[in-house]
Amino acid sequence: MSDPDVWETMRTARAIRRFTDRPVDSELLIRCLEAATWAPSGGNQQPWHFVVITAEPGRQAMAVGAGRALAAIQRVYGIDRPAADDDSPKARNARALFAVHDGAADVPAAVLFCVKDQPLTPELLLGASVFPAMQNFLLAARASGLGCCVTGWHVDAADELRTALEIPPEWHLASLVVVGWPDGHHGPVRRKPVAKVASLDRWEQPFG
Amino acid sequence: MSDPDVWETMRTARAIRRFTDRPVDSELLIRCLEAATWAPSGGNQQPWHFVVITAEPGRQAMAVGAGRALAAIQRVYGIDRPAADDDSPKARNARALFAVHDGAADVPAAVLFCVKDQPLTPELLLGASVFPAMQNFLLAARASGLGCCVTGWHVDAADELRTALEIPPEWHLASLVVVGWPDGHHGPVRRKPVAKVASLDRWEQPFG
Repeated sequence: MSDPDVWETMRTARAIRRFTDRPVDSELLIRCLEAATWAPSGGNQQPWHFVVITAEPGRQAMAVGAGRALAAIQRVYGIDRPAADDDSPKARNARALFAVHDGAADVPAAVLFCVKDQPLTPELLLGASVFPAMQNFLLAARASGLGCCVTGWHVDAADELRTALEIPPEWHLASLVVVGWPDGHHGPVRRKPVAKVASLDRWEQPFG
Repeated sequence: MSDPDVWETMRTARAIRRFTDRPVDSELLIRCLEAATWAPSGGNQQPWHFVVITAEPGRQAMAVGAGRALAAIQRVYGIDRPAADDDSPKARNARALFAVHDGAADVPAAVLFCVKDQPLTPELLLGASVFPAMQNFLLAARASGLGCCVTGWHVDAADELRTALEIPPEWHLASLVVVGWPDGHHGPVRRKPVAKVASLDRWEQPFG
């Protein structure tokens, strides 16, 4: 395993939505999950739990969530299934989007990131104790050559996932990340420039 | 600038609570904020905004939040100011904790991470579109030799920060990160092992 540069890793950790049939071996997943645990959390409480999904009950629950999520995406963004002969970038993006949702039950693996409820902590703040871990996982996966896609399927099939994976009620489902060997390439992310999203001391004073 | 290994960067991005007087120059902050923008967000909407705090109004608001946060930490965790001659690890940790709170108005710099409200999105899920960016920022800072400490001061002085920095009402304050040149060293984080926080397919089945 080579040791990639941290900047390059972050800059090219683009969402991957198509995977080869090659299985993701447990050792590699564990290595990426260990990187997840290196993230900060409130008071270093580490109130996170990661459920790796490979068996059928979890897969079926994911497929339910993906079906509902796809319907919502189509409704909100007005995206239709592209014609088979349409090879425009827009059509190719849409095709990858449909492919990952349609194939939710057959993804190589997935990880459900959970965070324990803390009664006095606002819900947004709970995220500070689990999403940094998810980001470390994504970067570790990218550095290992794996591809990931962060989904919202857990929102659309929370009950089904809780039942399938036996999640205790005091744990929130934070995110569901699909992981596998990329069918295609990692590449640079596309983002707004810093000056559009950063300010110095006052909101209206751009920085960058 | 050397190009550090991504694994080493993640493994040693420990919270830093003591800083030298050396200022953090803007170019370096912008470089770390650019890394923040490389993070994923829901639908790649990038609903984030970063406010760098260097001027007095923001500093005073931070100090208010730090004072309240420290009082809460002392109450909840029962931590007292250590005696001046106590050189135990516990006392040294406590001393660093008090130092960063007492010196909140004088930290080299800070960044307030904000996320735009999305009416149909659960609050926890909003965090998926800002905390990965924060984590990229922390890793970029670590890779650059800077030290950071994630605080909850924004929770304790939300109104004061909103007023001082002129934050629009539809933006949530997600986290407040203090940043500077470390007085001391980066070092390995201490975390629970993967097998304690990961499961395979069923919650009660450990993985790792």
